[in-house]
Amino acid sequence: MKRLIHEDFLLQTDAAKELYHEHAKMQPIIDYHCHLNPEYIANDHTFDNLGQIWLEGDHYKWRAMRTNGVGEEYCTGRGTSDWEKFEKWAETVPYTMRNPLYHWTHLELKRAFGVDELLGPETAKEIFDRCTEQLRTPEFSARGLMRKFKVEVVCTTDDPVDSLAHHLALKEEQFEIKVLPTWRPDKAMAVEDPQSYRAYVEELSEVSGVDIRRFSDLIEALRMRHDFFASVGCKLSDHGIEEFYAEPYRQVEIEQIFNKVYGGKVLTGEEVLKFKSAMLHEGALMDWEKGWTQQFHYGAIRNNNSRLFDRIGADTGFDSIGDFSTAKAMSRFFDQLDKDNRLAKTIIYNLNPKDNELIATMIGNFQDGSVAGKMQFGSGWWFLDQKSGMEAQMNSLSNLGLLSRFVGMLTDSRSFLSYPRHEYFRRILCNLIGNDIEQGLLPASEMKFLGKMVEDISYHNAKQFFHF
Amino acid sequence: MKRLIHEDFLLQTDAAKELYHEHAKMQPIIDYHCHLNPEYIANDHTFDNLGQIWLEGDHYKWRAMRTNGVGEEYCTGRGTSDWEKFEKWAETVPYTMRNPLYHWTHLELKRAFGVDELLGPETAKEIFDRCTEQLRTPEFSARGLMRKFKVEVVCTTDDPVDSLAHHLALKEEQFEIKVLPTWRPDKAMAVEDPQSYRAYVEELSEVSGVDIRRFSDLIEALRMRHDFFASVGCKLSDHGIEEFYAEPYRQVEIEQIFNKVYGGKVLTGEEVLKFKSAMLHEGALMDWEKGWTQQFHYGAIRNNNSRLFDRIGADTGFDSIGDFSTAKAMSRFFDQLDKDNRLAKTIIYNLNPKDNELIATMIGNFQDGSVAGKMQFGSGWWFLDQKSGMEAQMNSLSNLGLLSRFVGMLTDSRSFLSYPRHEYFRRILCNLIGNDIEQGLLPASEMKFLGKMVEDISYHNAKQFFHF
Amino acid sequence: MKRLIHEDFLLQTDAAKELYHEHAKMQPIIDYHCHLNPEYIANDHTFDNLGQIWLEGDHYKWRAMRTNGVGEEYCTGRGTSDWEKFEKWAETVPYTMRNPLYHWTHLELKRAFGVDELLGPETAKEIFDRCTEQLRTPEFSARGLMRKFKVEVVCTTDDPVDSLAHHLALKEEQFEIKVLPTWRPDKAMAVEDPQSYRAYVEELSEVSGVDIRRFSDLIEALRMRHDFFASVGCKLSDHGIEEFYAEPYRQVEIEQIFNKVYGGKVLTGEEVLKFKSAMLHEGALMDWEKGWTQQFHYGAIRNNNSRLFDRIGADTGFDSIGDFSTAKAMSRFFDQLDKDNRLAKTIIYNLNPKDNELIATMIGNFQDGSVAGKMQFGSGWWFLDQKSGMEAQMNSLSNLGLLSRFVGMLTDSRSFLSYPRHEYFRRILCNLIGNDIEQGLLPASEMKFLGKMVEDISYHNAKQFFHF
Repeated sequence: MKRLIHEDFLLQTDAAKELYHEHAKMQPIIDYHCHLNPEYIANDHTFDNLGQIWLEGDHYKWRAMRTNGVGEEYCTGRGTSDWEKFEKWAETVPYTMRNPLYHWTHLELKRAFGVDELLGPETAKEIFDRCTEQLRTPEFSARGLMRKFKVEVVCTTDDPVDSLAHHLALKEEQFEIKVLPTWRPDKAMAVEDPQSYRAYVEELSEVSGVDIRRFSDLIEALRMRHDFFASVGCKLSDHGIEEFYAEPYRQVEIEQIFNKVYGGKVLTGEEVLKFKSAMLHEGALMDWEKGWTQQFHYGAIRNNNSRLFDRIGADTGFDSIGDFSTAKAMSRFFDQLDKDNRLAKTIIYNLNPKDNELIATMIGNFQDGSVAGKMQFGSGWWFLDQKSGMEAQMNSLSNLGLLSRFVGMLTDSRSFLSYPRHEYFRRILCNLIGNDIEQGLLPASEMKFLGKMVEDISYHNAKQFFHF
Repeated sequence: MKRLIHEDFLLQTDAAKELYHEHAKMQPIIDYHCHLNPEYIANDHTFDNLGQIWLEGDHYKWRAMRTNGVGEEYCTGRGTSDWEKFEKWAETVPYTMRNPLYHWTHLELKRAFGVDELLGPETAKEIFDRCTEQLRTPEFSARGLMRKFKVEVVCTTDDPVDSLAHHLALKEEQFEIKVLPTWRPDKAMAVEDPQSYRAYVEELSEVSGVDIRRFSDLIEALRMRHDFFASVGCKLSDHGIEEFYAEPYRQVEIEQIFNKVYGGKVLTGEEVLKFKSAMLHEGALMDWEKGWTQQFHYGAIRNNNSRLFDRIGADTGFDSIGDFSTAKAMSRFFDQLDKDNRLAKTIIYNLNPKDNELIATMIGNFQDGSVAGKMQFGSGWWFLDQKSGMEAQMNSLSNLGLLSRFVGMLTDSRSFLSYPRHEYFRRILCNLIGNDIEQGLLPASEMKFLGKMVEDISYHNAKQFFHF
Repeated sequence: MKRLIHEDFLLQTDAAKELYHEHAKMQPIIDYHCHLNPEYIANDHTFDNLGQIWLEGDHYKWRAMRTNGVGEEYCTGRGTSDWEKFEKWAETVPYTMRNPLYHWTHLELKRAFGVDELLGPETAKEIFDRCTEQLRTPEFSARGLMRKFKVEVVCTTDDPVDSLAHHLALKEEQFEIKVLPTWRPDKAMAVEDPQSYRAYVEELSEVSGVDIRRFSDLIEALRMRHDFFASVGCKLSDHGIEEFYAEPYRQVEIEQIFNKVYGGKVLTGEEVLKFKSAMLHEGALMDWEKGWTQQFHYGAIRNNNSRLFDRIGADTGFDSIGDFSTAKAMSRFFDQLDKDNRLAKTIIYNLNPKDNELIATMIGNFQDGSVAGKMQFGSGWWFLDQKSGMEAQMNSLSNLGLLSRFVGMLTDSRSFLSYPRHEYFRRILCNLIGNDIEQGLLPASEMKFLGKMVEDISYHNAKQFFHF
């Protein structure tokens, strides 16, 4: 009986196998968007045990455990050991069949640790011990894992006020894998809470050395940090937004709104909208000036569960997919930049798959021939980062744009064990194309071009697009 | 040549066949949401002929007939006989190929009556006569049909003012199939029309014995009926709503709104919203106190055709799928309950499949480990109660939650002939899993677990979840 | 190795092959909605070369080229030759694999010109020359191409002020293919810009001979043109709208709004909404009186790129899919007509596939048995006019209505080379049904009915429905 993870996992046709094994598999990894902790790389962190590296901070697993009736003490609780948590996770694993966690779990066990057994209550202890033993060897340090998966570039996600100390240390040390920062100024837009916004602006003032008294000072301070990020090798920005903001505004209004919120007053909905519109636009100009790529992750509704938010904070598994109507604002936002010829290369990630076709056509509005695939429809994000989600994204992109120009996969992950998601993506890509060939939708005579296309999407497109 | 309905109908793989025949098929039916008339069960009603049992009240069939060019006199008209109506239906059947009616029709004919022929103009008379003859035997009474399909529990849908006389009679009689009421207080929220609302409140006042003068009286009266429903075995509530209502309100506002509508004045949109928010919240608290499960069927636009509404009333086939944006309100509604730890077990049914992924992630926000699968994404509802719809629901649930914890199928039907929909669902479930095994997405080694999972989804999950 | 375009292209099963080759293939083409230039037919236009006939006005190809990094000078630019443009297109073609352009391109090359080679940089010159040579023969004139593809009826898209001179000439000449106008009064509703609106009204006044001083004059003038269109054989109207408009209004308001915009004043959003609601309603009454079929193409966001709009104008590839919520307005619009029994036969085309199920159920609300398939869900439009899009539309229609009553395909095209899209559609239709038969979802015994159904959807349904 075949193992779950075998050589041809997910590859249903001969063409798919050829494409994967002869074209995709050997490509290095460019992980242009993730949430790794750069300190772990700088210090070449090692992990205590499989429970720790796998469960700490992994809200995907926590959600599954809670759904399976596992109490919070085994998810985020402090009173249980790594092993106890792991045991509950192992009990949950069989119940995740058909969820991507089931594949991710076994792919990671196999690729990182060579484990072939399926994880479950009976195998939990042995797998825990075996993997924990390996984790304590140098090969399984943060850097060891990155090397094992042939990572070439990693882009972390960083706040404008971040010192980038670890990025600088890695640069100086000439670590052979590029670890680059990404500019993520979400807090500079978070005017909903005047107090924490003021605290943030003061922090920004300090790190930038700019005395921020007015909106234009704020922009100047951000610009200095933007320059600094560029000097450390940053090539991308990123924004986590509910919707696109493109409300018409006058400069004087924005100055007043800034003064109001900085003065501690709560803004109206309209003021928030205008301020965010201004900030998004200003940031986009900076990205364009530097030749960066701007990323937009939009459409999540975050922190839905206030009881658990109060107890354990954000990013703990209580976010979900929203149903915003934002096409007109999105169009206006890009058009405002494009009409002055200052629209940077862009990647749009949507969280609600109902918008796949919308995004796949929206990018077409601003493809102007200046860069192949200038506007990108981002790979299946978060909840959509699974087989159906990735297939739906690639099918929409194919039907409404050019799959061949796609910059491909990223992990978006906090974990050093997530690199097999690139393998997962590539197998799915090769399988899609292979099925098309088998069904006569793509000509079998064009395997050479299709092989190149697979290589491009796996590696070369990203490399060229981002100028790493 | 194979018959349409044969042993392995819908089962494409060996694994699917094994799962269905060795695990799903023999499970009893728990039909936890339907619209059967409890009087028919209490009186053990028999049916005159196949036209009557099949066409009376079946707006699915009427819609198909109207689309096929059949006049209203053969759908809801009083001037035509059951046979004449049936004949028109039989003429329409071939034109329903690829519509779920085509499968339902032949599955019901086969399972209830043993008919193998396809229904059409040539076979209409013979099938009508043969089935009608059977219908007149005791085996085909309301109870006979329930026994034939191994029904264990049935939950009807009942208004708070209902006397539940038939449920009580059945309880007293100790009928071996549990026939339980479901609390559906839609009319208690229907403040759009002050006059009929007042009439309803007066009726509620009478049956509850509570003199309703203020909003708090209304709640007290409802609570007494809620207690009464519980005493008759009710375990579920249900709400038919366009959108979720979670508008902030103060108690004094609700009192004023109640007085206004009770006084005969038309409410503003904002007042309606606040009132419904309050009612939905108050009802949810009652459900939580009793350990019931609350159901929400949302997103339909009803009575779109006023010409035919005026002529033949509601629920006659003129409803359709809406396109509401309701994620934020839905989140707020559940959060308001959860933050006080008073969120009951919940099932959400959406009518627009564009919201499948939204719901499948929304439930994750409130899974807190207290009950496995506490928050449920309901099985494909109404227009989505067909192969594609059920597959889409199960795929979304699988990708974004745990299919293994799903409470499964319900008929939502007015007809005693609809139980084969459970078979239809189970075959589709087994087929999905079987395809996954064949494609290597699920491990063939885990047939034991998967068999148990199929049994759970078909029967055990519901049994445990609802505490029948 | 099989060619891409071969006898059984897209046909995966024996049943599909039988349905296509014995039922679909030989049906004539009724192209009831397209954007062909009637002058080209009247003058029996011939084309200079393959670049010209294929790239002039083809915004699908331009979008693909721009996405592939091709500059505007090779899309819409005047400084490059047809051959230079074609060369860039040929370079782009391999990069369109998985996009419908890849299939359309090779289907058109094969069916019109007999070309079996795949288009690409190496084959570009030879294919250009070979096809260009053929294009200069009489067989490849506008009429020659229509005859080659067995076109029986063509409905163009025309403004109420159009003289229909070419249609009249063709009628007089008794050209054997019916070339009928379609009433598309978009400009009569375009009140956003008072100046151009007034100019349009003045033009309408002139061609109709009605002195337009008030709204009722406007309607009278339109009615005269409507009569004129009918006299030339028009059987359909068409509307390009963002959303459905069904805002309540009083006649006197509309009179005032008309006076305001005609007087050069910019209308408020609410006024625009009311005016469009009135116009849409008035036009629908005219269509009903004549027994025409009204078409609605809704949901596009147009002219998103103002930089390129300013340079090269509308319909150049900068439109995309919107995310409007319009179900309630749509319902109200049709209900207003239906309640007076004045709802014409209707086809609704949506651009966002998230609305497929909504439309497929919306039409059910107004099927009243008067005409089989009176309300139609239009075939995959524009961005959705590809395999996935057409399959999704047909699956939704099947699940929620009657596929058997579908009036089928139209090209919606500006090009005389687009007729193979009917073949594409028919193959996809036959393949869908064939797969269902193979999977046991449809009975193999019913091939006779299914063959008739394929013939109906390919040809007979449209013929009967539109009364050509």
